[in-house]
Amino acid sequence: MEKLIITVAVTGAEVTKQQQPNLPVTPDEIAQEVYRCWQAGASIAHIHARMPDGTPTQSKEVYAEIKKKIQEKCDIIIQFSTGGAVWHKPEERIQCLDALPEMATLSAGSCNFGDDVFMNSPSFMELLAKRMKELGIRPEIEVFEPGMIENALRLVKKGLLELPLHFDFVLGVPGAMTGNIEDLVFLVHKLPAGCTWSVAGIGRYELPLAVHSILMGGHVRVGFEDNIYYRKGELATSNAQLVERVVRIAKEVGREIATPQEARKILGITK
Amino acid sequence: MEKLIITVAVTGAEVTKQQQPNLPVTPDEIAQEVYRCWQAGASIAHIHARMPDGTPTQSKEVYAEIKKKIQEKCDIIIQFSTGGAVWHKPEERIQCLDALPEMATLSAGSCNFGDDVFMNSPSFMELLAKRMKELGIRPEIEVFEPGMIENALRLVKKGLLELPLHFDFVLGVPGAMTGNIEDLVFLVHKLPAGCTWSVAGIGRYELPLAVHSILMGGHVRVGFEDNIYYRKGELATSNAQLVERVVRIAKEVGREIATPQEARKILGITK
Amino acid sequence: MEKLIITVAVTGAEVTKQQQPNLPVTPDEIAQEVYRCWQAGASIAHIHARMPDGTPTQSKEVYAEIKKKIQEKCDIIIQFSTGGAVWHKPEERIQCLDALPEMATLSAGSCNFGDDVFMNSPSFMELLAKRMKELGIRPEIEVFEPGMIENALRLVKKGLLELPLHFDFVLGVPGAMTGNIEDLVFLVHKLPAGCTWSVAGIGRYELPLAVHSILMGGHVRVGFEDNIYYRKGELATSNAQLVERVVRIAKEVGREIATPQEARKILGITK
Amino acid sequence: MEKLIITVAVTGAEVTKQQQPNLPVTPDEIAQEVYRCWQAGASIAHIHARMPDGTPTQSKEVYAEIKKKIQEKCDIIIQFSTGGAVWHKPEERIQCLDALPEMATLSAGSCNFGDDVFMNSPSFMELLAKRMKELGIRPEIEVFEPGMIENALRLVKKGLLELPLHFDFVLGVPGAMTGNIEDLVFLVHKLPAGCTWSVAGIGRYELPLAVHSILMGGHVRVGFEDNIYYRKGELATSNAQLVERVVRIAKEVGREIATPQEARKILGITK
Ligand SMILES: [Mg+2]
Ligand SMILES: [Mg+2]
Ligand SMILES: [Zn+2]
Ligand SMILES: [Zn+2]
Ligand SMILES: [Zn+2]
Ligand SMILES: [Zn+2]
Repeated sequence: MEKLIITVAVTGAEVTKQQQPNLPVTPDEIAQEVYRCWQAGASIAHIHARMPDGTPTQSKEVYAEIKKKIQEKCDIIIQFSTGGAVWHKPEERIQCLDALPEMATLSAGSCNFGDDVFMNSPSFMELLAKRMKELGIRPEIEVFEPGMIENALRLVKKGLLELPLHFDFVLGVPGAMTGNIEDLVFLVHKLPAGCTWSVAGIGRYELPLAVHSILMGGHVRVGFEDNIYYRKGELATSNAQLVERVVRIAKEVGREIATPQEARKILGITK
Repeated sequence: MEKLIITVAVTGAEVTKQQQPNLPVTPDEIAQEVYRCWQAGASIAHIHARMPDGTPTQSKEVYAEIKKKIQEKCDIIIQFSTGGAVWHKPEERIQCLDALPEMATLSAGSCNFGDDVFMNSPSFMELLAKRMKELGIRPEIEVFEPGMIENALRLVKKGLLELPLHFDFVLGVPGAMTGNIEDLVFLVHKLPAGCTWSVAGIGRYELPLAVHSILMGGHVRVGFEDNIYYRKGELATSNAQLVERVVRIAKEVGREIATPQEARKILGITK
Repeated sequence: MEKLIITVAVTGAEVTKQQQPNLPVTPDEIAQEVYRCWQAGASIAHIHARMPDGTPTQSKEVYAEIKKKIQEKCDIIIQFSTGGAVWHKPEERIQCLDALPEMATLSAGSCNFGDDVFMNSPSFMELLAKRMKELGIRPEIEVFEPGMIENALRLVKKGLLELPLHFDFVLGVPGAMTGNIEDLVFLVHKLPAGCTWSVAGIGRYELPLAVHSILMGGHVRVGFEDNIYYRKGELATSNAQLVERVVRIAKEVGREIATPQEARKILGITK
Repeated sequence: MEKLIITVAVTGAEVTKQQQPNLPVTPDEIAQEVYRCWQAGASIAHIHARMPDGTPTQSKEVYAEIKKKIQEKCDIIIQFSTGGAVWHKPEERIQCLDALPEMATLSAGSCNFGDDVFMNSPSFMELLAKRMKELGIRPEIEVFEPGMIENALRLVKKGLLELPLHFDFVLGVPGAMTGNIEDLVFLVHKLPAGCTWSVAGIGRYELPLAVHSILMGGHVRVGFEDNIYYRKGELATSNAQLVERVVRIAKEVGREIATPQEARKILGITK
């Protein structure tokens, strides 16, 4: 089985310091947290930028600053979120690409998301795909419902994306698909041969989906964006604590951990 | 096995007379077409209103006129669409409820739909559910992705909808879930015990999904809203032609057809 | 979609004239019945031989006589059963191969079967596979449980069978797997790419599984071996009556029927 | 989620000391090994008896001696195998029940098993069920293929078994069903509500299936009967080592371990 790629989503667009006091928010905090997660075994850092007051921003300057500070510390793969916050406009969301991350997310359709609608129209998806292609950024296809796999494959047919793709199943969002094992099995069966996949379980789904994925040959995303608890009723002390548990379980079941360089190879990132 | 409820979606919001010359558009045409489908075996008429020039409208006056004209001809269950066209605003879409159909659709989430986003925010869903409850209208829950089943069950927990619900799986929309047999099996497994379900396959998915559903104990929707062809490359001559084929196949496999009164009983509509 | 191959299993080893007065038993009766089914659209005849008193036999002479009489009437593909009756010994069961049918069944494992155990040990499976290979007989892999697919693939690894294989899912036998749609979907997903498959539903499972298979791109087996009724409580008047219904439904859903020559091509039989 | 019941199958009928030097064979060795596993967290001991030379036996005297020696050490639930070795006759296999274990296995159908056929005819299954009922022994239904669930439910209909039943899915036996996650999900969906289940993965399937089951709310069987390795190429030092790993992983994912008394309650064993 391929080595395990662990993505850490350290900040997200919605969590606050009030909810999780250890949330990294400034570029310095984010870089420091990512560095600790890299030490723990993470090979991709999924990044959302924030303003000093914690407000989510898609400003390319802030993204560039975060990137620079992370790169000073370690060789982790830097992945920017083009999802932003649900109230960000498309033209804001796409900006972060100008800061030239190695990877960026491409959410492959629309769905409800908490009290809101997370909008990813076909034309916005095309715009994102084209821009990533121009800039040589490796997309990660975010999938919240099965139809989104089809949406991505439609972009492949149009020549805007190329197989094999790397998918991330984001499961358990209130408003979209649940994150039970039958959901994951169903989605994985839909992927074209040769594609790689990861799973990001939201809240109480994070840990079980991560462990199922380790066993199934998938990859794993954890972090405060998706889940702020270490166990029921107990806040995690850091993103690294969540990464460390994944590493321990992977070792128990005999799955090796990919370094960032090994992850680049698995994902077809040439650098 | 329960008798088969056939819904006919005679018009929809998108098809034009240019695409399908036999499309019923005016209240008179719609009532006449519904009547022929009722004669063929349909027990629910799923209705979209149009302006005289064919533009979709959610005007309660037009819906009321259609209802009146149908009721003069037959006892088919009248179901209005609250989906409207993708560019209709929520306040327009909900209007048709004031014309007091027996049933109305409630789309249980958002997804891409062709080049657009079909928006059904949580707050709009709640509004629809409340209004239908006040007016004694039986909802049909439209499901385009598995997460939408969860969204409906969330409204049940809030007391805005009541089990058992009646679901309609709309499969094969470009932008949402495909309509292969494994998709249908997966969705049906997710329903709470006692719920009823129907399937509306879009385009080439219409006929195979209808037949699978007949065999599985589900119900069936056909009609020009979903598919304008009788077979590949051959336009259907009428909505009734599509209903007639479903009836013939149901007879071949030994599934009896429900009358509107029998359908009311199956769906828990008290009238 | 590939044209539909209809197999008719006219006699079987267990049904009696007492249960189904129109059961063909003698070589003449069997040839006549097969001929009528070929006229109706069947392209494979699945044959079990009987003694004049109706007792099942694996005698190569009787099989040879049946083959000769069928070939005098039509070009249907002749497939002999190596399953025989559950009380037949392996050395009896294999005999029919000496009568050189174009195809023969190879049951890929053991399971309970009514009150008995249907024994197909690994060594007997190997013996059958080797003998068919020597004689140039195309095997049809009979699968009653998912593990039997693996058993067949184990013979492929040993070089005793070759991909692509043709499978027949025999579902609904008391003692083995049921024949619901989720069972069929599950099994079909397990097949290697390029394999073809058919389904033989036992008793009340025959018709629904046949129709699901028509829609899914699989092939169909019907006949008195599997089911003696036309509908609940009404005996079929002939095997041909069961074939005719499959043909009518296939036409309704737009699936064309394969001639024996077309079936040979689909199955990779060179003749 | 219910606490986790860990069954340890310390000996089996096939493994030899040549293959696994730490295999417990004599009553003393078995009792000592079971005791160590109980200390590690096992709450059921699945027992096969052996002659002093290692030959499997179903002798009630040997089973009685093993039972006595285990009970002197700890309160673990003692479960005897009625499967025995594949060459044991039914009348030998059933004997162990006379030694009055709290639980015993009931294999619910026939399948190939390595080079042999594992025979469990309908009449033998009925005999086992009746005898366990008379003696107040709680059955564990061993399932190697989906059809075996149906076979057990057929005994329920006959009044020979009672719901809720406890099932054990034995997956990965060469000759029967594989042990991939989709296999497990498929089987679990088939169980009647209220039933409990465990999984015994054979060989390389043991650990991944155990971990999936921990996450899914199932129970777990490990031990030398099913797998003699700790990891690829490295023999386990004891059955307890395999139990300990399951316990560590369960703790990592927040599933508590059942004591034998808690396991009795979960399984409906009154003692
Ligand atoms: Mg959606
Ligand atoms: Mg079997
Ligand atoms: Zn994100
Ligand atoms: Zn509509
Ligand atoms: Zn046969
Ligand atoms: Zn055992």
